[in-house]
Amino acid sequence: MADVYLALVHHPVYNKRRQVIAAALTTIDLHDMARLSATYGLSGFFLVTPLEDQIKIARAMIDHWSEGWGREYNDTRAEALRLVSLTRDIGEAKEQIKKLSGTNPIVVATSATDGPERMSFTDMGSLSLRKDPILLILGTAWGLTDETMAACDIILEPIKGPTEYNHLSVRSAAGIILDRLLGIR
Amino acid sequence: MADVYLALVHHPVYNKRRQVIAAALTTIDLHDMARLSATYGLSGFFLVTPLEDQIKIARAMIDHWSEGWGREYNDTRAEALRLVSLTRDIGEAKEQIKKLSGTNPIVVATSATDGPERMSFTDMGSLSLRKDPILLILGTAWGLTDETMAACDIILEPIKGPTEYNHLSVRSAAGIILDRLLGIR
Repeated sequence: MADVYLALVHHPVYNKRRQVIAAALTTIDLHDMARLSATYGLSGFFLVTPLEDQIKIARAMIDHWSEGWGREYNDTRAEALRLVSLTRDIGEAKEQIKKLSGTNPIVVATSATDGPERMSFTDMGSLSLRKDPILLILGTAWGLTDETMAACDIILEPIKGPTEYNHLSVRSAAGIILDRLLGIR
Repeated sequence: MADVYLALVHHPVYNKRRQVIAAALTTIDLHDMARLSATYGLSGFFLVTPLEDQIKIARAMIDHWSEGWGREYNDTRAEALRLVSLTRDIGEAKEQIKKLSGTNPIVVATSATDGPERMSFTDMGSLSLRKDPILLILGTAWGLTDETMAACDIILEPIKGPTEYNHLSVRSAAGIILDRLLGIR
């Protein structure tokens, strides 16, 4: 089974007007996605932002729940947040994975929109049975930029329900993707 | 295919010390779960709380995104929030379903913990192919009370990943449960 990693990317992503921005951190994303990472046995969860003040906020939040009162109040948060690494860009996340898993990861972009050459969840599941580490990338705000998507090795097909509505939160999308790939039923 | 409804219950639920409380509304739950409801074609999403001030907050939030500036800024929120009904208790939600779908729903409790007589996701999927409406109930805080669980027709098995960690947010759990029952892949 491959080592699987998750990255939540705050830059470069689009805003509503398709301008490239650095999105603000949502602390609930950090909790929800750390808990998902712990549940599905991920090897690490990278919070990607180039903004130093945002990294400070994330660090303070993680420290709060990992030490002293916060840890005592709710130690399952600490357990999940241990998986979080704060990185400036996707390249830094890839370097950390190379150190941890010994080889470069297959980088998989996720997207809410259909397009050419999307990999199905079934094929992605087969890929995760191989030994190369996998880095799943999710974009915040209005999604990963075209350049970021193009630089990934694979683009995963969008999540589909029985409707045409495709506006899930990144938190919801992360859970569903991990469950489709790694859930036990 | 059955009409499927979701209820997010804020009372009666346990707090950390297993006292019965009315949990505070988390507005991000409302957005995330309304979006999930729209994606998976649910017939309705009930926010259940007996607290009048909390109902006012939820109503103000829904109105903000359903009218004027909020709607103009992001109309996919309005589309999802149209599915939300504010109800005082689970009984009120059941009455609304009887009016909308013509018959009493099968009430399905969800739980993060294993126990006797849990229904598997596979059997639950088969049930949703029948015509009786289904009401999926999720508890906030430390979960639905024993009495609430006992009053439901069915208890769904917990979500499992490949680890022993079972502390997902209610937002994450809702997405994974709906995808397992209604996702297209």
